[in-house]
Amino acid sequence: MRDGLPDYICACGRSYPPAAARWRCECGGPLDLAPVPLTWTPDLDDDTLWRYAGALVLPDLGLTLGEGLTPLIRATSDGEPGLLLKVEYASPTGSFKDRGAVMLVTLARLLGAGRVVADSSGNAGTAVAAYAARAGLRAEIFVPEGTSGKKLQQIRGHGAEVTVVQGSREDTAAAAAARVEETGAFYASHVYNPYFHDGVKTYALEIFERLGGTAPATLVLPAGNGTLVIGAYLGFAALRDAGLVERVPRIVAVQAERCAPVAAAYAAGEREVRPVRPGPTVAEGIAIAAPVRGPRVLEIVRETGGAVVTVTEDEIAAAHAALAARGLWVEPTGAVAYAAARRPLPGAAPGETVVAPLCGSGLKASL
Amino acid sequence: MRDGLPDYICACGRSYPPAAARWRCECGGPLDLAPVPLTWTPDLDDDTLWRYAGALVLPDLGLTLGEGLTPLIRATSDGEPGLLLKVEYASPTGSFKDRGAVMLVTLARLLGAGRVVADSSGNAGTAVAAYAARAGLRAEIFVPEGTSGKKLQQIRGHGAEVTVVQGSREDTAAAAAARVEETGAFYASHVYNPYFHDGVKTYALEIFERLGGTAPATLVLPAGNGTLVIGAYLGFAALRDAGLVERVPRIVAVQAERCAPVAAAYAAGEREVRPVRPGPTVAEGIAIAAPVRGPRVLEIVRETGGAVVTVTEDEIAAAHAALAARGLWVEPTGAVAYAAARRPLPGAAPGETVVAPLCGSGLKASL
Repeated sequence: MRDGLPDYICACGRSYPPAAARWRCECGGPLDLAPVPLTWTPDLDDDTLWRYAGALVLPDLGLTLGEGLTPLIRATSDGEPGLLLKVEYASPTGSFKDRGAVMLVTLARLLGAGRVVADSSGNAGTAVAAYAARAGLRAEIFVPEGTSGKKLQQIRGHGAEVTVVQGSREDTAAAAAARVEETGAFYASHVYNPYFHDGVKTYALEIFERLGGTAPATLVLPAGNGTLVIGAYLGFAALRDAGLVERVPRIVAVQAERCAPVAAAYAAGEREVRPVRPGPTVAEGIAIAAPVRGPRVLEIVRETGGAVVTVTEDEIAAAHAALAARGLWVEPTGAVAYAAARRPLPGAAPGETVVAPLCGSGLKASL
Repeated sequence: MRDGLPDYICACGRSYPPAAARWRCECGGPLDLAPVPLTWTPDLDDDTLWRYAGALVLPDLGLTLGEGLTPLIRATSDGEPGLLLKVEYASPTGSFKDRGAVMLVTLARLLGAGRVVADSSGNAGTAVAAYAARAGLRAEIFVPEGTSGKKLQQIRGHGAEVTVVQGSREDTAAAAAARVEETGAFYASHVYNPYFHDGVKTYALEIFERLGGTAPATLVLPAGNGTLVIGAYLGFAALRDAGLVERVPRIVAVQAERCAPVAAAYAAGEREVRPVRPGPTVAEGIAIAAPVRGPRVLEIVRETGGAVVTVTEDEIAAAHAALAARGLWVEPTGAVAYAAARRPLPGAAPGETVVAPLCGSGLKASL
């Protein structure tokens, strides 16, 4: 323990005290936090996710852009009676990544880091840049070549340094990690840092609160690196452990058919996830060929009686159009969960409550 | 009265029963609603602006995209201690216009209109298209030539018909009005329809609730057509009339120096607003050369002891950069109120509570 923070733990058995430079296990695996007992005392005068401070690992240092408490609305005024959509794109930077970014930057401040490094082609990089700016920390964001000028303009607008990496998304992550190793900067990684998941946990806590202290039967969640799957699971598991809900909702993880390593492992009954060579997909936000936390996603899906399903490019496009025709404007990746949720779900009873997120704003997509 | 709705009234003395085809007075002037006594019973289980149904003219028909309850945050973690920013861009369609659009489309449904018409180069047109889609109403949006392809894509994505008008913004409004006159369609005008202001009223009610049942000393509000000035005034005036606050906050209206007809009238001590020939401004969202409700804005500013001020293009650019450097990403028009609020305000005491909105998302701006 240091500063009251829990140790990092790895599935291999190693553990580490919290430190700005510690971003993965010596075995190469990602780190987790020991589960935190939840205190359910939402501060009703706080309209940000800090209303759940009693359930979060990090203390509220006052860092906020107004993230959290996103709308939970019916999919349609008629039809699809049990399907609720959580409008995550109505977030300060336009995606659910704000829930995690606010935690990473709060942690960086708490650990005295003066500089944060992140890698992302999209929403996570923008969110980290925005929160670092809010906190007065210097940020360096690694992006792959081909990242749109509009995104670079925003990241630079927030005062972050942009490093364009010639190569793939994986090359970009490797370049960021190398910079972290060289400089000892804080790695604000939405993939490796478990505090990101602790922030995303509030996705579950908000649903619980909004449903009058109950859990839905099923959560349908897009899965690339599995951030939402893991975060939502942690939230409902904490509520279950506190005796507030009976069980964690069934979690149905959704991948784009053209980049579906976790779905392949699930279908094969495996515990490990083998990297795939992805095809082109409009769901760029979840096109992760080698997801570091894929095994954890598999565990969660199996433990909750859920499934991993895939959606085709045509289904994503149709879901995007159907949402737009109902007034909901998402980026293509943001239509993935709805594309699965509007089909019959494996194991679901008719009319049961299903919640799916609309993750990222359509205003983010390039024409 | 019809369907329990109040009559429309005009400053000239005429009044009219509510009807889908009635959009302005026979004298040509804009219509208002008789003031509605406010019942302060927010529904704390409702996270949309319909939590204030007891204070709104229209009944809640279940139409929502999750609008309202936007964050109210400090401008900085240090400095500018009394300045609060209301993050209106964290709205379903990315601007405060959602507050009014949800009312216009609710009214269209209530009056049995099958088709709505709107004109806008920007946020209002997108918002009306989105809410019409949500309600299952057909929409036709008139836009001026030169409107970006990205905006047209979104409006069409929502299923609305787009009519591009060769000419100015005023020509666009005239074309929309002509279509309304020809067809009897419902004119979903954020300029003429007073229900738009009734929705924007919730901007004030939220501030009142979030500040623990008090009013700030000053509201700084951008003014083009004056929608926010009028809506915020109506909200605090209703709270005052109900005995919940002592007075309406001082309202400081802000115009871009290059298109400042209301500021010119204010400075000259006049009651009428003469059209100007505008210069080019990045604040396109408030570049209104001949504001229909300009005289009402002048009345409100004078009644509340406020002022009409202008900001230069350089000040808008500097405010935009300062917001971005603090993690807040707005379109250029969205920086106008902050540009004024960060200067010493006319008549303001040091440290008094000032609230300024960040109206539209930076994701909306073209590169």
